[in-house]
Amino acid sequence: MSMIINGKTGLTGLLGSPVGHSKSPMMHNTSFQELGINYVYLCFDVGIEGLSGAVDGLVSLGAKGWNCTMPNKSKMAQLCDVLSPAASITGSVNTVVNENGKLMGYNTDGTGYMRAVKEAGFSIKGEKMTLLGAGGAATSILVQAALDGVREISVFCRPGKSTEHARQVINQLTKQTACKINLFDYSDESVIKKELLTSRILTNGTNVGMAPDTDRSLITSADFFHPDLIVSDVIYNPRETKLMGIAKSQGCSCFNGLYMLLYQGAEAFTLWTGKQMPVELVKERYFDEPEARLRTAQ
Amino acid sequence: MSMIINGKTGLTGLLGSPVGHSKSPMMHNTSFQELGINYVYLCFDVGIEGLSGAVDGLVSLGAKGWNCTMPNKSKMAQLCDVLSPAASITGSVNTVVNENGKLMGYNTDGTGYMRAVKEAGFSIKGEKMTLLGAGGAATSILVQAALDGVREISVFCRPGKSTEHARQVINQLTKQTACKINLFDYSDESVIKKELLTSRILTNGTNVGMAPDTDRSLITSADFFHPDLIVSDVIYNPRETKLMGIAKSQGCSCFNGLYMLLYQGAEAFTLWTGKQMPVELVKERYFDEPEARLRTAQ
Repeated sequence: MSMIINGKTGLTGLLGSPVGHSKSPMMHNTSFQELGINYVYLCFDVGIEGLSGAVDGLVSLGAKGWNCTMPNKSKMAQLCDVLSPAASITGSVNTVVNENGKLMGYNTDGTGYMRAVKEAGFSIKGEKMTLLGAGGAATSILVQAALDGVREISVFCRPGKSTEHARQVINQLTKQTACKINLFDYSDESVIKKELLTSRILTNGTNVGMAPDTDRSLITSADFFHPDLIVSDVIYNPRETKLMGIAKSQGCSCFNGLYMLLYQGAEAFTLWTGKQMPVELVKERYFDEPEARLRTAQ
Repeated sequence: MSMIINGKTGLTGLLGSPVGHSKSPMMHNTSFQELGINYVYLCFDVGIEGLSGAVDGLVSLGAKGWNCTMPNKSKMAQLCDVLSPAASITGSVNTVVNENGKLMGYNTDGTGYMRAVKEAGFSIKGEKMTLLGAGGAATSILVQAALDGVREISVFCRPGKSTEHARQVINQLTKQTACKINLFDYSDESVIKKELLTSRILTNGTNVGMAPDTDRSLITSADFFHPDLIVSDVIYNPRETKLMGIAKSQGCSCFNGLYMLLYQGAEAFTLWTGKQMPVELVKERYFDEPEARLRTAQ
């Protein structure tokens, strides 16, 4: 990836820890270059403790905006001056726009996921979703799906800390949207089976099945899946999770987390530049996945 | 200039105002790329008021080091934890190395100038220098020349604020070096003439003669110059100042401020990376000056 850096190059970047293997610098720098935008994107290995200082620093240096990743998304939400609806409800910010020191916080994990669904060729507005998990990624998806007009969402999670947060989020969404949201735990498999029967899309928002534990799946019975079900996973390593493999065997359309990763970046790019990321170019260069592998079955 | 930026790219840069037209990003980024060093150099438009915050920010972001330029060099000296001898005596820092939050301050304007003399083919150790000016650039040259073994330096300056600072600097140098330093004002031209007679090198450390006032020169009489005098100027716009033109007509060897600009950068580069800047490549690409124009006469 080749780019010109001069005295007027603007700074964007990523605050997280670890960040050394992030694909984001490649995605954004390629896009800046392709569109002739004089910005650069760097990664800064900064955790919760250093976050406030790093944010002050980015403001002092006149940075245009930045992304946050683990473990900084919740703390970043507290440091912003203004939050988007999704950032406010999730309490989680992955994208900041610096408007002369006024920090505008967004959550493009959710918008990225919703765009991924659309780019994969599906419309889920007015449909029902079954969502596995209530952690950061799952909550971002839950909130944006409700805001974007998904009719009903059945959330499955393990009893624990995140359940309480999920309840608060669901209360907010129930006040602010027409979406019907149900919260279940995983204990009774027949409930999952029943919810899936009436769902258009199943989304795994947990890390169950991620490498190295690739033989795990929250759903193992092939007969839970009907062929009209879209099955998506926020995991992209492996490219095809065990969950996706089982779903595929039942004729489901599937896509993995690479789409969400790509489009959360594309949405951030647009917030910073007002322009569309050249996603086809980025996909081709850095995601290195034939379309057939991103969408594993028809 | 083409470079790879990934999740491990280290940050260096320039704090000053204005900085938009600096050649430093080109110099350093080309050199990083040429040597396969995974750093990038950006410019930040930051003045005195924002400096402390910007420095904290660079530390928070784990920046490797940075340059300072106008108006920040004195304030930066106050913000460092440790100063090099030249930075301490001048009270001026143009290069910082960030050693895990411990800020080491250097002044490579002086070392850059002294290296420029050497690279232009001259040795002035044990010789006498006549120096015009007592501002920032002149003081950096004065201090490094004294530290590097120049035998005697005659400094000419206008009575005013900088005279007092010059006196303090000279007192320090007199304590710490064997250099004999004389301080004169410009009022009596015959003094300049007399000092030049016994000097090996004349250095204009003022901005007199800089564009747009290219018809000005602190010395206008051609008979002040003897052919063995080296005449250097910290100005590089125009490439040949009026002072240099007159000196050249008397057979003097001359070089302009591009060398100092280049080598102050090269010295900073070495402080950050431990490696030599590929100066020939940088000269060729960005200084755009045939050797003959850098050194205007023999």
